[in-house]
Amino acid sequence: MKKIINSTDNLITEMLDGIVMAFPKDFKRVEGFDKALITPRAPVKNKVGIATGGGSGHLPLFLGYIGENLLDGAAVGDVFSSPSAETMLAITKAIDSGKGVLYLYGNYGGDIMNFDMAAEMAEEEGIRVETSIGCDDVASAPADDAGSRRGIAGLIFAYKIAGAKAATGASLEEVKETTDRALSVIRTMGVALSPCTIPAVGLPTFEIGDDEMEIGMGIHGERGIKREKLKSADEIASFMTERVIDDLPFESGDEVAVLINGLGATAPQELYVTFRKVKEILDLKKINIYKSFVGEYATSMEMKGLSITLFKLDKEFKELLDMPVHSPMLLQQF
Amino acid sequence: MKKIINSTDNLITEMLDGIVMAFPKDFKRVEGFDKALITPRAPVKNKVGIATGGGSGHLPLFLGYIGENLLDGAAVGDVFSSPSAETMLAITKAIDSGKGVLYLYGNYGGDIMNFDMAAEMAEEEGIRVETSIGCDDVASAPADDAGSRRGIAGLIFAYKIAGAKAATGASLEEVKETTDRALSVIRTMGVALSPCTIPAVGLPTFEIGDDEMEIGMGIHGERGIKREKLKSADEIASFMTERVIDDLPFESGDEVAVLINGLGATAPQELYVTFRKVKEILDLKKINIYKSFVGEYATSMEMKGLSITLFKLDKEFKELLDMPVHSPMLLQQF
Repeated sequence: MKKIINSTDNLITEMLDGIVMAFPKDFKRVEGFDKALITPRAPVKNKVGIATGGGSGHLPLFLGYIGENLLDGAAVGDVFSSPSAETMLAITKAIDSGKGVLYLYGNYGGDIMNFDMAAEMAEEEGIRVETSIGCDDVASAPADDAGSRRGIAGLIFAYKIAGAKAATGASLEEVKETTDRALSVIRTMGVALSPCTIPAVGLPTFEIGDDEMEIGMGIHGERGIKREKLKSADEIASFMTERVIDDLPFESGDEVAVLINGLGATAPQELYVTFRKVKEILDLKKINIYKSFVGEYATSMEMKGLSITLFKLDKEFKELLDMPVHSPMLLQQF
Repeated sequence: MKKIINSTDNLITEMLDGIVMAFPKDFKRVEGFDKALITPRAPVKNKVGIATGGGSGHLPLFLGYIGENLLDGAAVGDVFSSPSAETMLAITKAIDSGKGVLYLYGNYGGDIMNFDMAAEMAEEEGIRVETSIGCDDVASAPADDAGSRRGIAGLIFAYKIAGAKAATGASLEEVKETTDRALSVIRTMGVALSPCTIPAVGLPTFEIGDDEMEIGMGIHGERGIKREKLKSADEIASFMTERVIDDLPFESGDEVAVLINGLGATAPQELYVTFRKVKEILDLKKINIYKSFVGEYATSMEMKGLSITLFKLDKEFKELLDMPVHSPMLLQQF
């Protein structure tokens, strides 16, 4: 395992030290909580607070989405491990301005358990908490069991919607409703060409042949829907885009945002080659691209692969998507 | 070789298709020139045009730096290959508003030959061209032969300085002088843990053991200054930072910009762990960090590794560095 780190024990603490040292205007820790990261502006007055969280190893997901018109806090777990309920509670208290807090994160059992616990504890302290959960990975469960699906890169669109909606001064109920509505029209599928290595484990998360790919693999290496010989970019893009389109379904005349997300070790050139085919397919189906996003938005350390996300837009979603955000870890296109 | 591409022959053309399709407000081709990319606003009136160029495989370098208050055009080569003189000439003509054009790129023989040829052809057509060349890689030649040094990630600081200076309406001579002055106080050193694979070749650019690293390796896999067993992040950061500091030298009381650049397959967490140590060293030496940059600014496809750059700032450099830029491929921190 070749990584530029010191010890695996202190990896996340040191990473967070580096982040806070590099961008002190954008990130700080909640006093006394090593893994509770918030915006230095917290609590932002008259605004619903938005918190996310999850295991480390996916930067810029999750904490990279803390920022102006975006999120207020992120509970940070060890690599691929859930953050603690105490960490999420500390964040909740730090970011609540009195309008309540929305928890917005991906569908993983450990996170749900710990964050539900934090929500209960927060309610006991008089802070209203609602929860919205990303389930965009179409490969991980069939459409009639969509609530079981894993949350992957599509979550970032929900971040933008929730952050912008909260910035307009909306109530907690309104922010949740709008965010859930967005989540309901976001669909993603990924493909992995290589594993990644969890530092504390020291070995790759799975084995895959030199000439193989796995369609639908999860961002922690969870089993996908098919393993086969590596195909061309156009074949991969066609297979995945068609399934994403059919799953909602996205239809002729729809307007969408598109995300081609790199998992960490896939070069940008490959993401743009993929985008080219995705656009061609959407054009043929008369699905209009309102805005495109190409880059590393939700990684799995050094995993090779990418995911394709479509988000069906209405007038409100377009306005919210257009609201400028600021975070040092995100691309200027976001 | 596992990449998500179609053919290697058409890789760069397809990549450029994807880029222009994804961000049509930010990139377009010069009519009739597949590999000549410019801002759609070209030629920008009353502004010195700035062109860069080099082989593909380093995104967001070079073309990603086309943008507002940044660069106007980029000549795109095949992977790790020089762009043609004709491509650079086409860009030069497209971006010249009458104030002349600065070529700003890294020190590689093929690029120099082709771009010098383009400059001659441009002068024959009445367009004034000056050239500034990045030579920031301290590992590639000793300080008394600094002009031989390779250009690596530090070039991105020169882009920002040149782009901002041109945006103030400065003359070609002034833009070149300021850019050269910036280049003279930028120093970088890199470390590689793994090779990358040139698609047309299909094999890794070099061999390196599972537990080894090479300090000072170039971004195309050029030999570095030492190959040894992989050390800890703190040891690597100390070794490289000390040498970068000593090379100028950077001194107590200096103000610097710092760049921790990922080469493609090194996870952001490792970059932030590295930054932590670099800041600690600079603090001890009373070298003040004015601004920090951490992320993928100049990659080598899927190479594992990173580089550390210091840029010594004066009042003017700080102002120019502070000028906002816009490019979809760059991080919001830039």
